[in-house]
Amino acid sequence: MKKILTCLIICCTVLRIRAENGHELWLRPRTALPVRVICERSSPALAIARRELEDGWVGKADASVVLAFTKDRAIKGDGFRLGQRGIEAKTDAGILYGVYELLRRQQTGLPISEEVCNPSYERRILDHWDNPDGSIERGYAGGSIFWRKSNPFAITDGDKVLWQQYARADASVGINGAVLNNVNASPLILSTDYLARVKAIADILRPYGIRTYLSVRFSSPVQIGGLTTADPLDPGVENWWKEKIKDIYQLIPDFGGFLVKANSEGQPGPQDYGRSHADGANMMADAIRPFGGIIMWRAFVYKASDKDRAKQAYAEFTPLDGQFRDNVIIQVKNGPVDFQPREPFSPLFGAMKKTDVMPEFQVTQEYLGQAVHLVFLAPMWEECLKSDTWQGGPGSTVAHCTDGSLYPQRYTAIAGVANIGLDSNWCGHPFAQANWYAFGRLAWNNRLTSGQIADEWLRLTFYPIQRQRKEPAGYQADWETHFLQPVREMMLRSREAAVNYMMPLGLHHLFSANEHYGPGPWWAPQKVRPDWTPPYYHKADTGGIGFDRTNTGSDAVSQYHEPLRSQFNSLFTCPDMYLLWFHHLPWSYRMRSGRTLWQELCYHYEEGVRQVREFQNIWDKVRPYVDDERFVLVQSKLRSQSSNAQLWKDACLQYFGQFSRQPIPPDIERPVHDLDDIIRDDTMRR
Amino acid sequence: MKKILTCLIICCTVLRIRAENGHELWLRPRTALPVRVICERSSPALAIARRELEDGWVGKADASVVLAFTKDRAIKGDGFRLGQRGIEAKTDAGILYGVYELLRRQQTGLPISEEVCNPSYERRILDHWDNPDGSIERGYAGGSIFWRKSNPFAITDGDKVLWQQYARADASVGINGAVLNNVNASPLILSTDYLARVKAIADILRPYGIRTYLSVRFSSPVQIGGLTTADPLDPGVENWWKEKIKDIYQLIPDFGGFLVKANSEGQPGPQDYGRSHADGANMMADAIRPFGGIIMWRAFVYKASDKDRAKQAYAEFTPLDGQFRDNVIIQVKNGPVDFQPREPFSPLFGAMKKTDVMPEFQVTQEYLGQAVHLVFLAPMWEECLKSDTWQGGPGSTVAHCTDGSLYPQRYTAIAGVANIGLDSNWCGHPFAQANWYAFGRLAWNNRLTSGQIADEWLRLTFYPIQRQRKEPAGYQADWETHFLQPVREMMLRSREAAVNYMMPLGLHHLFSANEHYGPGPWWAPQKVRPDWTPPYYHKADTGGIGFDRTNTGSDAVSQYHEPLRSQFNSLFTCPDMYLLWFHHLPWSYRMRSGRTLWQELCYHYEEGVRQVREFQNIWDKVRPYVDDERFVLVQSKLRSQSSNAQLWKDACLQYFGQFSRQPIPPDIERPVHDLDDIIRDDTMRR
Repeated sequence: MKKILTCLIICCTVLRIRAENGHELWLRPRTALPVRVICERSSPALAIARRELEDGWVGKADASVVLAFTKDRAIKGDGFRLGQRGIEAKTDAGILYGVYELLRRQQTGLPISEEVCNPSYERRILDHWDNPDGSIERGYAGGSIFWRKSNPFAITDGDKVLWQQYARADASVGINGAVLNNVNASPLILSTDYLARVKAIADILRPYGIRTYLSVRFSSPVQIGGLTTADPLDPGVENWWKEKIKDIYQLIPDFGGFLVKANSEGQPGPQDYGRSHADGANMMADAIRPFGGIIMWRAFVYKASDKDRAKQAYAEFTPLDGQFRDNVIIQVKNGPVDFQPREPFSPLFGAMKKTDVMPEFQVTQEYLGQAVHLVFLAPMWEECLKSDTWQGGPGSTVAHCTDGSLYPQRYTAIAGVANIGLDSNWCGHPFAQANWYAFGRLAWNNRLTSGQIADEWLRLTFYPIQRQRKEPAGYQADWETHFLQPVREMMLRSREAAVNYMMPLGLHHLFSANEHYGPGPWWAPQKVRPDWTPPYYHKADTGGIGFDRTNTGSDAVSQYHEPLRSQFNSLFTCPDMYLLWFHHLPWSYRMRSGRTLWQELCYHYEEGVRQVREFQNIWDKVRPYVDDERFVLVQSKLRSQSSNAQLWKDACLQYFGQFSRQPIPPDIERPVHDLDDIIRDDTMRR
Repeated sequence: MKKILTCLIICCTVLRIRAENGHELWLRPRTALPVRVICERSSPALAIARRELEDGWVGKADASVVLAFTKDRAIKGDGFRLGQRGIEAKTDAGILYGVYELLRRQQTGLPISEEVCNPSYERRILDHWDNPDGSIERGYAGGSIFWRKSNPFAITDGDKVLWQQYARADASVGINGAVLNNVNASPLILSTDYLARVKAIADILRPYGIRTYLSVRFSSPVQIGGLTTADPLDPGVENWWKEKIKDIYQLIPDFGGFLVKANSEGQPGPQDYGRSHADGANMMADAIRPFGGIIMWRAFVYKASDKDRAKQAYAEFTPLDGQFRDNVIIQVKNGPVDFQPREPFSPLFGAMKKTDVMPEFQVTQEYLGQAVHLVFLAPMWEECLKSDTWQGGPGSTVAHCTDGSLYPQRYTAIAGVANIGLDSNWCGHPFAQANWYAFGRLAWNNRLTSGQIADEWLRLTFYPIQRQRKEPAGYQADWETHFLQPVREMMLRSREAAVNYMMPLGLHHLFSANEHYGPGPWWAPQKVRPDWTPPYYHKADTGGIGFDRTNTGSDAVSQYHEPLRSQFNSLFTCPDMYLLWFHHLPWSYRMRSGRTLWQELCYHYEEGVRQVREFQNIWDKVRPYVDDERFVLVQSKLRSQSSNAQLWKDACLQYFGQFSRQPIPPDIERPVHDLDDIIRDDTMRR
């Protein structure tokens, strides 16, 4: 039926726009002009650089581009200098990144001026939560591109092509690392058969400058090593890791290191043996140090018994500051709870002054509508990176606290949990590709704005390819006015819309059950630990709503540096967007808007629904500028998003309305679902 | 959860309003004042009249009311004269109707002036489509109040109480007949055991002036009589019916007669034996005549082979005009197809000048949202009754053509297909009670307006009972302004809203499958006869939409009397509301509004959705004036109606959009469902 629809509807454009399934991402084939590439050296990476230029050159025909190596100290790591003559860099990867930057500027119409571009983070890593059986935890775009269930060790030409396409896309935005498996790691990943496959993948990624990493299970020595303990201070354990690491480096000499989730959500860890996170991380760090590897140790820890989950990572890790080896880097999620639509930044940023710290963002939209909702995440990451921690005085943004500009770090790194799967368009939702793109771009340059990134991505991904040569005069200006501007606006407003229709005003974790998609502020089965249920977070009752984290509550505010501590603690200065994160307030609380808290909540949910409807309108209007395949897919997903938004609003307002005991203001559209029905349908799905 | 909600929300009224489950209908108990009832005769009906006055008197305390019999020729049949002293009538039933009218005027605050009130139709009948197994065809309010599956012949006190409550409600609005079983009749209804139960019911209904009728299956002589034929000209068959009728009248001396659906939708009939409808009806009429009974013979006939179902009743019955016995009355549905949200009136009205004809309305909302949508049907019936057929010159309305004022009729009658079941509120939806009420009121007086009826019904059904004695000054005026006016408006607009969101501009029968609830303009399984599928009716293709019934099409227009024939035939004069009933038009057809047909269709669907949302708003605002139980139920049903309306709009606009090949205008809210998904969900439900 969708095909019929697609076929029947006549495109209003002058020229037919080529159907696109999105597999080409932002790297769509161009009709290139001739170019002469001059490079004194040769290597697999340089060969790629040359081919990219030849295949994608849309600059002056028959121009010459020089790819040159330099010792210029202005260029750091894999950075490069862009100039009229070409690209200078210190490394092969630097040349490659320069080529991609040059082509991007050509294709987006940006000026190419003399400029040095250095990466903000040395390691820009995608964490794939892919399981050896081919499934992906929190993956919404099909199975794993790395692993599969049947015939798991066969490596086909198709696999190799896909891995290469993946590597190219990563490199084109500056990503230089990939953790190939889930942080909830199977010990099997360190078995000989799996390591052989890891090596095959690493060999494909390497020419694109991408290092391979693995997540490891702390108890691997017991589970696949036959030892009786995984105690990090046990010499047998230490030895097992050393041997295993040696094996890995024999296969993959540039192996990046390990990512470890330990003593978190049921994962084994050093605390099982009475040891600290530092003991565990350092043992591994020592074992991998001779090979140049690093240990990324996650700070995402919390216990069911604690009264405020938001405090726990800080409480557990700050006492260990200074105790970690210099090849350990603590991986900290952007917020103190768990990738919610909005959280304040984690207080660990800037607090561990003697320890390398790396931010972990979630590219896959676990809590943001998965592959259904159009939510551009760059604004969320930008909000976090630009948050001032005050840990080193004013201007100590999360970006500065992690990129080495505030504290010396042996390593700087940033991780994004990937949203990539076997779907032909990689990410499930065409606009979810923008989040992959944005993560890479921000990892390279953490000063970029969301608007710049959206602009680039839209130009690369949606400017009609067929038109390059024969478009009518004025077409580009028309496209910019009628497609680029409204769609960019939609992207930039999309995250705030999601916050509005899901959990505004600092509310968080209102999801039903474990799939983290639909609303479930009521969801609290007896068997489930309280800190995995929404009532733990919203604390709504007839007295009010919100989590009191002030100094008379859980005192989580004290984990923030002044003046934030006081700012968050006081109702007069706490920003509305964090209000119910830090405060439990009566329903009649008078907001700055003049509305009561209850009314304000209603207006936010309503606003969210209206915003998505407006996105639908925006998208429907750009039909003449988009190929049918992507147009229809996005249109369909926006419809689902719109009805989901309505469901969120209906569920939350009716659920909280039981406590507020106040009606929904009359100028707000009425619910179309009964709360009873929503709960029943939700329960039936379990 | 609903209970929690109900309990938690504090009622904003000064006084608590008594919870009501709706079982008392418009006859809610009052705190009566003393009254002296004077009546010279006594009978069961008069005893009821006396009790009603004593229990419901809210006029002057200690007044006297005289119930008197008269021979005044101004009073017809069961009519009555209302006066300052009391009520005069010719029959017991007339006295009873006068009492209900008097109490209604007291309770609604209408003046009681000297006035003669005569019924428009002599027989005012509810057709119950109840099956002997206790189910109800097109029933949406629980099982049958007359029949049940288990222990079918036991008669409990509960049964009798319910039948009496039913009879009282009927009598209070002037209904004086009940067909106790489905027109798709089981022959079993004429068996001894079932007739015993019919007698028991008739005995309860009788004091309320209600006659009992039965639907019979034409083939009963074969199926339960052991005959080899049901040929109406066969003497054995004739004799069987005579004997059966004699048996019935021995049990029920005032038995009303038979309702027959013959040679229609697979039901047996005289045509099975090469006989005409007249042959069949007359045989039965002759058999029942000695007992004073009538035969109501349905004109609802059509064959799968014919090209325009709308023409068939007229084509089959007008040639028989004059051939029917005078105790046969032809029962004609309001429209030529089948109880659609909007149809022009059936051309049979006024066309059969030598035959008694009675209108059949459908009180149960088979095609109008069943017990979920709030749709007040009086405007639809008023539209039909006031339609001018021109058959006897201008002013020959359907009302005049059927109530004996235009043509002499031995019998006048009107039937409504009941919406009554075992649900505690009788009709499933609290507002569906208004349709039962309205049918009775219009049957009594076919000149009443929908507005008058809605006003009466709302005052009787919703004015807070607890307040009668102690309400604050000005409460009634406040109630009228803030409850009565907006809710009456909502009722009066509700049918047009349903037309808008289901099938505007003369579209009809767009329902999916046989349950006649959700949208299914695409629904056309190969095994289903075409005239039971929507494409037969809408005929949408890329060339346009609508059923061409003009004189160059099926020529159904020719069944209407001039000037209607020309009016409907011409695009310049055909009303918009019947446009696609009579015309197949291109999508680009320019409407009077200036919009194209496609755009106009879009705006109608959109308007329907917005109207239901407005109904939600209206209802939510009247919360202080309504008891919680009914408030919450109506609120919940309006929510479903609102999301159903959205689904109708999304389904129809996307389905037709495939043919119109035009986008939905940008100022119309975008669909939130994909057509593919709607069709898939619909298919999965089958």
